[in-house]
Amino acid sequence: MKNYKFQNATKIIFGRGMEKCVGEEILPYGKKVLFHHYGDEFILNSKIYRTVQESMKNVNLEIFELTGVQPNPVLSKVKEGIEICKKEKIDFILALGGGSVIDSAKAIGLGATYDGDVWDHYTKKHVIQTSLPVGVVLTIPATGSESSAGSVITNEKNHIKLLGSNGHSRPVFAIMNPEITYTVPYFSMAVGGVDMMSHVMERYFTNETCVELTDRLCEATLRTIIHNLPRTLKNPMDYAARSEIVFAGNLAHNGLLDCGRVPDWACHFISHILGGFTNLSHGATLSILTPHWMDYVYRSNIEKFAQFAVRVWNEEYNPSDKEETALAGIRCLRNFWKELGVPMTLSEAGVELSEGQMKEIATIVTEDGPVGNLQKLYKEDVFKILKASA
Amino acid sequence: MKNYKFQNATKIIFGRGMEKCVGEEILPYGKKVLFHHYGDEFILNSKIYRTVQESMKNVNLEIFELTGVQPNPVLSKVKEGIEICKKEKIDFILALGGGSVIDSAKAIGLGATYDGDVWDHYTKKHVIQTSLPVGVVLTIPATGSESSAGSVITNEKNHIKLLGSNGHSRPVFAIMNPEITYTVPYFSMAVGGVDMMSHVMERYFTNETCVELTDRLCEATLRTIIHNLPRTLKNPMDYAARSEIVFAGNLAHNGLLDCGRVPDWACHFISHILGGFTNLSHGATLSILTPHWMDYVYRSNIEKFAQFAVRVWNEEYNPSDKEETALAGIRCLRNFWKELGVPMTLSEAGVELSEGQMKEIATIVTEDGPVGNLQKLYKEDVFKILKASA
Repeated sequence: MKNYKFQNATKIIFGRGMEKCVGEEILPYGKKVLFHHYGDEFILNSKIYRTVQESMKNVNLEIFELTGVQPNPVLSKVKEGIEICKKEKIDFILALGGGSVIDSAKAIGLGATYDGDVWDHYTKKHVIQTSLPVGVVLTIPATGSESSAGSVITNEKNHIKLLGSNGHSRPVFAIMNPEITYTVPYFSMAVGGVDMMSHVMERYFTNETCVELTDRLCEATLRTIIHNLPRTLKNPMDYAARSEIVFAGNLAHNGLLDCGRVPDWACHFISHILGGFTNLSHGATLSILTPHWMDYVYRSNIEKFAQFAVRVWNEEYNPSDKEETALAGIRCLRNFWKELGVPMTLSEAGVELSEGQMKEIATIVTEDGPVGNLQKLYKEDVFKILKASA
Repeated sequence: MKNYKFQNATKIIFGRGMEKCVGEEILPYGKKVLFHHYGDEFILNSKIYRTVQESMKNVNLEIFELTGVQPNPVLSKVKEGIEICKKEKIDFILALGGGSVIDSAKAIGLGATYDGDVWDHYTKKHVIQTSLPVGVVLTIPATGSESSAGSVITNEKNHIKLLGSNGHSRPVFAIMNPEITYTVPYFSMAVGGVDMMSHVMERYFTNETCVELTDRLCEATLRTIIHNLPRTLKNPMDYAARSEIVFAGNLAHNGLLDCGRVPDWACHFISHILGGFTNLSHGATLSILTPHWMDYVYRSNIEKFAQFAVRVWNEEYNPSDKEETALAGIRCLRNFWKELGVPMTLSEAGVELSEGQMKEIATIVTEDGPVGNLQKLYKEDVFKILKASA
């Protein structure tokens, strides 16, 4: 186990009707609120939108709405928000939405306290060490952004999508009512579940030893998702199953599962670039890439993959052929995702990439050096994984 | 799953040598530090004491030492600390120790910001909503007080031991270096492990349904303790095993395992009063009481006890005789603790209580109504459990 520091101060407010307290939760931070959301018809006509509005009005908050967030949130919208914050002396940013809205709100929060260009934070030219407080009412469980430190923003001028991470970006509260997620479409829930599982597996597959507690916490989270995700897809109004998924999605990425470990993140790195090339959703790139990444790297830590098979998928451990056990786990993951109906290859997702494009992606992924930790992946490795994923 | 709110902002600083940063961690809160610890020869001659002192001096903190904490921290010492804080305008309280020192520091932190009597907070006459910031360098893993909201203080005038709980009491940081715990004596480590397991089991044994994720997190924590506690006892300098135990002891009581559940706490309630009568250590009262409590209540939720047997102890589930499975789990717990050498009955701990004393304890335990949630325990029930524990 490695030395670690962990702090996550986000207040989790979980359950039916909890969104009604949003105004009261904001009040200690000030009066002027930037209310950030998609702003499409679906949101504007929704009960959750009205409830959140009313809750804020009940405590006399002054609301400035900023709508029009895109699925991959863009820098221009972030700058629009920063301008409003500075001009109107905004005290608090409320994000009503999923990962995109939350990430956009986080970026606005950072930029509102900084005199320079907020993009500096994402290019690491200048790490901004302050933020306006951000609160979240979560509508789509998947990214874990509601209590994570990171945000991913796309600079639409050069099509570069970058992650900025900063403890100051963790939302001060996250309201999660599983009922609000009942209307999330099947495919979004399915690939959201893939993203959650990936967040856990990126931490789980480590060569770091003596990480028993966090291994077991990862396994607990994965088993819970595996048990409940199909139930939420079959019956979207199964409150119990939704609760487990919403809770697990948060735990998957709140930082606890990182403690003392060296995470991998190769699949996420490749996913971000692949997503930029194909416009595939983040979860879909992960369902395509992850099993092919596993096929490619499992030999570098067969024991860990065998543990995955036994403890997560109830496969029997074969001490005389650990590789057989390891492969059984990968097969289980593949079968599980196949049954959900998420794409397992690029062609299943209707995407065809030329070898030249694959090489280009592999070049961008590895331009700052190899990615991944379980096994370091160089350009050629990333290319091979992409080719296998075709 | 019940609605819940959860927030734990304590910064966990974990690993070898991390105590060296204590001065830097305190600095943002101010210059004047109340340094609270046992102050016995063992501490004063220890490396950790010198390291902490040096780290604070290196950043020019002004140190006021308050020593002489007792194993059940007392109100008079707390008041002594409050007086120093008020007189010297202390900015920060640093606790170097285990649960007793930390609880004493928390009480001082609360009282230092309150004009009235700090005991009001423990009697619930007035809940203090502020605290001086408290930091911790942990020397004994057991109580989880290093990031919990609670503190237990004994008023030595009337021998009443009360729990006060308050989010403001959570330490702002907790430094946990497993190496510092190498010198904790065998018995303290063993009953400390019992306390950790009890913290998990008090949450685990609930009638609340649809709590899959937290069930699995509880099981993960228990399995980790069960695997590593005997290793730390056999080889006190096994860093890997110590790390798991220190980490698990924190997770057991940081509040995450409570989320969405109704905890029981009957054993802890009885333990506090029994401890006051007998001077047995907290962990020893729990090792005596818990299996007898289980014998008494398991029929009220046989499924849960069967799950405990299967998932925590690898017992086989017998669908045609669930009670057999449930009993197997209780037997496993008993055997595990017996092998550690902790007392399993009052007589094993050298304590003899008359029936009159048992009735008196049962009366005090239930004076505000029945205790426990898995099964509500009235005076007669508590008496019977005590009698079985003789």
